[in-house]
Amino acid sequence: MAGNGFGERFRVSTFGESHGPALGCIVEGCPPGLPLDEACIQADVERRRTGKSRHTSQRREPDQVRILSGVFEGRTTGTPIGLMVENQDQKPKDYSEIADRFRPGHADYSYLHKYGLRDYRGGGRSSARETVMRVAAAAIARRYLSRQLGIDVRGYLAQLGEIPLGFSEWQAVDENPFFCADPARVDELEDYMHHLRKSGDSVGARINLVATGVPVGLGEPVFDRLDADLAKAMMSINAVKGVEIGDGFACVHQKGTEHRDEMRPEGFQSNHAGGVLGGITTGQDLRVSIALKPTSSLRLPGDSVTVDGEPVSVVTKGRHDPCVGLRAVPIAEAMALLVLMDHYLRHRAQNADVTPPGPRIPGSPGE
Amino acid sequence: MAGNGFGERFRVSTFGESHGPALGCIVEGCPPGLPLDEACIQADVERRRTGKSRHTSQRREPDQVRILSGVFEGRTTGTPIGLMVENQDQKPKDYSEIADRFRPGHADYSYLHKYGLRDYRGGGRSSARETVMRVAAAAIARRYLSRQLGIDVRGYLAQLGEIPLGFSEWQAVDENPFFCADPARVDELEDYMHHLRKSGDSVGARINLVATGVPVGLGEPVFDRLDADLAKAMMSINAVKGVEIGDGFACVHQKGTEHRDEMRPEGFQSNHAGGVLGGITTGQDLRVSIALKPTSSLRLPGDSVTVDGEPVSVVTKGRHDPCVGLRAVPIAEAMALLVLMDHYLRHRAQNADVTPPGPRIPGSPGE
Amino acid sequence: MAGNGFGERFRVSTFGESHGPALGCIVEGCPPGLPLDEACIQADVERRRTGKSRHTSQRREPDQVRILSGVFEGRTTGTPIGLMVENQDQKPKDYSEIADRFRPGHADYSYLHKYGLRDYRGGGRSSARETVMRVAAAAIARRYLSRQLGIDVRGYLAQLGEIPLGFSEWQAVDENPFFCADPARVDELEDYMHHLRKSGDSVGARINLVATGVPVGLGEPVFDRLDADLAKAMMSINAVKGVEIGDGFACVHQKGTEHRDEMRPEGFQSNHAGGVLGGITTGQDLRVSIALKPTSSLRLPGDSVTVDGEPVSVVTKGRHDPCVGLRAVPIAEAMALLVLMDHYLRHRAQNADVTPPGPRIPGSPGE
Amino acid sequence: MAGNGFGERFRVSTFGESHGPALGCIVEGCPPGLPLDEACIQADVERRRTGKSRHTSQRREPDQVRILSGVFEGRTTGTPIGLMVENQDQKPKDYSEIADRFRPGHADYSYLHKYGLRDYRGGGRSSARETVMRVAAAAIARRYLSRQLGIDVRGYLAQLGEIPLGFSEWQAVDENPFFCADPARVDELEDYMHHLRKSGDSVGARINLVATGVPVGLGEPVFDRLDADLAKAMMSINAVKGVEIGDGFACVHQKGTEHRDEMRPEGFQSNHAGGVLGGITTGQDLRVSIALKPTSSLRLPGDSVTVDGEPVSVVTKGRHDPCVGLRAVPIAEAMALLVLMDHYLRHRAQNADVTPPGPRIPGSPGE
Repeated sequence: MAGNGFGERFRVSTFGESHGPALGCIVEGCPPGLPLDEACIQADVERRRTGKSRHTSQRREPDQVRILSGVFEGRTTGTPIGLMVENQDQKPKDYSEIADRFRPGHADYSYLHKYGLRDYRGGGRSSARETVMRVAAAAIARRYLSRQLGIDVRGYLAQLGEIPLGFSEWQAVDENPFFCADPARVDELEDYMHHLRKSGDSVGARINLVATGVPVGLGEPVFDRLDADLAKAMMSINAVKGVEIGDGFACVHQKGTEHRDEMRPEGFQSNHAGGVLGGITTGQDLRVSIALKPTSSLRLPGDSVTVDGEPVSVVTKGRHDPCVGLRAVPIAEAMALLVLMDHYLRHRAQNADVTPPGPRIPGSPGE
Repeated sequence: MAGNGFGERFRVSTFGESHGPALGCIVEGCPPGLPLDEACIQADVERRRTGKSRHTSQRREPDQVRILSGVFEGRTTGTPIGLMVENQDQKPKDYSEIADRFRPGHADYSYLHKYGLRDYRGGGRSSARETVMRVAAAAIARRYLSRQLGIDVRGYLAQLGEIPLGFSEWQAVDENPFFCADPARVDELEDYMHHLRKSGDSVGARINLVATGVPVGLGEPVFDRLDADLAKAMMSINAVKGVEIGDGFACVHQKGTEHRDEMRPEGFQSNHAGGVLGGITTGQDLRVSIALKPTSSLRLPGDSVTVDGEPVSVVTKGRHDPCVGLRAVPIAEAMALLVLMDHYLRHRAQNADVTPPGPRIPGSPGE
Repeated sequence: MAGNGFGERFRVSTFGESHGPALGCIVEGCPPGLPLDEACIQADVERRRTGKSRHTSQRREPDQVRILSGVFEGRTTGTPIGLMVENQDQKPKDYSEIADRFRPGHADYSYLHKYGLRDYRGGGRSSARETVMRVAAAAIARRYLSRQLGIDVRGYLAQLGEIPLGFSEWQAVDENPFFCADPARVDELEDYMHHLRKSGDSVGARINLVATGVPVGLGEPVFDRLDADLAKAMMSINAVKGVEIGDGFACVHQKGTEHRDEMRPEGFQSNHAGGVLGGITTGQDLRVSIALKPTSSLRLPGDSVTVDGEPVSVVTKGRHDPCVGLRAVPIAEAMALLVLMDHYLRHRAQNADVTPPGPRIPGSPGE
Repeated sequence: MAGNGFGERFRVSTFGESHGPALGCIVEGCPPGLPLDEACIQADVERRRTGKSRHTSQRREPDQVRILSGVFEGRTTGTPIGLMVENQDQKPKDYSEIADRFRPGHADYSYLHKYGLRDYRGGGRSSARETVMRVAAAAIARRYLSRQLGIDVRGYLAQLGEIPLGFSEWQAVDENPFFCADPARVDELEDYMHHLRKSGDSVGARINLVATGVPVGLGEPVFDRLDADLAKAMMSINAVKGVEIGDGFACVHQKGTEHRDEMRPEGFQSNHAGGVLGGITTGQDLRVSIALKPTSSLRLPGDSVTVDGEPVSVVTKGRHDPCVGLRAVPIAEAMALLVLMDHYLRHRAQNADVTPPGPRIPGSPGE
């Protein structure tokens, strides 16, 4: 395929540029009979919308999702679901001066050399605006997985620049603009972001994801392991530079006796693996962590070159997030939901007849 | 597809269990006319073979690769290339006692619950033995990429347990059993592994990969970004729990002014991005780093349960690597080669007509 | 994938129901730099539009195509092209009385039993209205193939019911509402259709397609032969029940000496094969012929059952074509264009380096 | 993908040339727990084997199938099944004189111009010998479909050259070398083939297929309709030039009132559609008919050219079938089985939760 679709049985294909007329997607393979309306999708889309706080881009887009097909009398019909969001707050003129030069750290150079021309308005297709449709499509997956299987996928900000952030409670996450799970730290983050924005610089972040209620058996080794598809899903998000499953890079200095999750009849004793063994879910919580780089859209000048190879100093105007990590939680959740949904359908295609010969082992107590 | 194939235009499909009659693969889409014989493939396969030092599994497999199709008079014909390695040193009896129980940290439980039955001999399909065919297939990709494009993909051991290892020289890597790029550290590693093996425990590792000679323009956003496919490729390798592109998790505390790779006519000024921007290669070196967990095959007993859910203490017999990371370098290189080969073919499918409008910017000086 | 996408490197995914808000598609993989605007697509869409003569459905849809992405300053950018047509002349009430019963010969029963519910308005997704997007997408392929390779794909009505129709001239085809290539027969067809429409019955048709300017070498044996993909493409069109390549079913009683196309330096001596040997194009004209069944939407009552299994007599109201074959020419052309475009890109992915060792043999003189 | 794989969830990838060391395939996605051994596969492979009567090629291959993976203790494990047949009766010298010239009607020219070189021994990859692996893989599908769903797929010779052949009884089909379902006609066919073989010429054939026990609901519109995938499957078989579903080309002159299959509570009243409506199975018998061209491997000389474009007269030596249609029945059955198996798994991926709201309508009485 050509790179703009994700998933095999639950497949999402997207289109749309940052400053084009509209963004859209097609969701194929959704089981029929699922209650669905635009409000249900809108709720998830709202969580990633810009312009809600001063810490994110000031582009104000209503991001109103329209369902164009695949739903009849309030239920999915099994045919492809077309979704669309029209762009409204385009300011393409903001970008005219980067038409002939490359912003350092952006995709301008790689896109131009790949395709020979580029839509430079707001990054065109390389803009994170594209992720609206990921979130919209994943809202359908979320609904199915939640209703049919009790799966829940949630994320939170685990580090902002040099500030590590613990997990306190899920409820807090949607009550602050940082997706921070520790309400006591919110003021500190406000302050940090205030100074960052004034400095004109940007910073990276770490996001943690947890999926609960996951059945045993999802994942298709040897290549389409669940963790492999999660890694791809996460790394396909703009600005993501690292992915960990379970203990991730901490495994490097672990001993086998420390890492292996022992089992007892009452349950797993730990979850270093992060819910996947041999590429297949164990029924423990899925644990994923990702690193997001600092955005390169800065008003501090940087050395660059023009399309013709002449030296130039570039300052990025337009409206940007000083920390793209702050809005990445709904997007990362979306990608994890798409992976789980697709793998659930793939799993039952092959294994709908299977009865496991013994009891299921519960997840570790801490989960 | 069903999880045992990788790639779209250069596609590798594999089969085979650890203790079955044979392992094999089909390589589809290889450009015709490439000089190829079994010796050329064998050279790469030798690099991952077990039983060559006391630090790896003592299973002794000749891993003799046969080409069964797709090559005529010493050249590829464009038709699928069938490869096969017969298993010779099977000792399935080593595994009879784990038939009814789950080894902690292994895929036994997840496989059984997914499929309802499992080939428990040596882990069956979940064994790292499966990676022989990845390396064999990638040897073809390596040959094409090297001859046609000058691409080279190499890796080295960057950390063994708590011991970080620097890069000194590529030549050293194949001259010690650790794929260590710093020959001065080899004695230390020998000693460390000696004590580890005696202790009965295992340890994790970090591998770094570098691809040089990569053209600008590989990668298919928004989902099949080159880095996304690399992340999947790496995470599909047994025991891998983390993947980084470029600066990876270090990005979390970087500032934008620090991370963005500035450009001048004479070249990029740094390579924090690791050779990918917007999911498309920039022509800088690709930099990938992966974390491998400590193997769970230990002769130190661990708590577990039987298939029927009864508590049991499990000791893993059979022949195992105390650090699977030690043999992961050729496998990680193989997966990176498969990604690059596939994306090169995909890229030219769409963009063979493209002429970039300006000059190519050289890689950063340090590369 | 999930059945609503076609092609691998040039991939078209569609959505939309007969009486939903809109129809749309995503075209992925289009080479960048192709001059494209809405007018260019509209021209092809006009050819299949209903309501232009009294011999087709009287539904009047402007079928105005909007380009939503993937085109910048009049050229394709290589990113996905989103297309949309809004439905305007819906009359869903026409269909309310078939909500609880199955029209004989329609997809009502099979859709309901597959998905458990169905959008009964005008056949929902099973309506031929869906083919608007195939034609729109294929207009892009047509443009590329014509400009870059000189390929032309044209079709004509070869039989209407019991009336066989010869080929006289291409120019005539677009000058009558029947896509008839023999202008002398148009009055006869008018008369035939007039009586058919009055009778309330419908009739089948045969369409012939010819592709000229096709390069040698397209097709990917053994499964994705060019003829195999053409057969799928044709049979995926509503109402198509038979596909022939070259001499088709006439081959059954041919002798080998009669069928084999002999070659001389000046060219092939005949084209019984229809331009494909071993699943790969020979450079001769592609010849394809398809059979379309008579539509089952009749105002003459037919026996059927309700959703609950009760006997019922069904009369189809709504607006329908008495011969769906009359509008099938642009649709069949569209599907052939999609196959050729996709295979051209697939071919150069693998074989861009190939130089054939000898001269190309011209097509047979009659072509 | 690259053309040598078929199916999405039940996927068969094949390799191997007519005179290479071996043929093989990988079968992915088979449900686990299916009882399977080599004998079960061998039985189907025997049906297409050459050298059993004087009417087929005299090449004598034991076609002994080996299972290399994916089966443990007599049952499929859900992991990929590797199958292999070693070639034994190669006579590559028979083909040395066609190394520099093209046999008219063969794939020699198209392969050489696509790939730049070719394995000319017995046609290499373009030989019908490749279909051994299709039959072997489909034997697994047959077993699953028969045991789990009661599906049966059978074919017979419906026309040999100018001799149409009726259907009398299934039992007769495997009792004569022609797959003829009318035992009274066998002597006539013996006589016909005797004279044909003596003449040095070849002839075409028609094969009919019937699938019984098919559930309602298989097929994935709008592109992966069941009939579309059947058409592709059939046209991917060597020498097939035409495909019909249900009444096929007879539909061209049918009226709608004649073609539409009326329904009553006791069942469908006819089966003109051939068991598919809207691309989805209706539960009626699937009816497929295919045309096979006369083989072009003749000992009667034909005009051709050399690789360098010089005129030459070609006589095909080697061992060939005077009517490839005679052995096509098991191959056509195999392809239909692969389509049904794949679509059954695809269907339940999406629709495992569906309960149809009303009763199933039985097939037409004649079935």
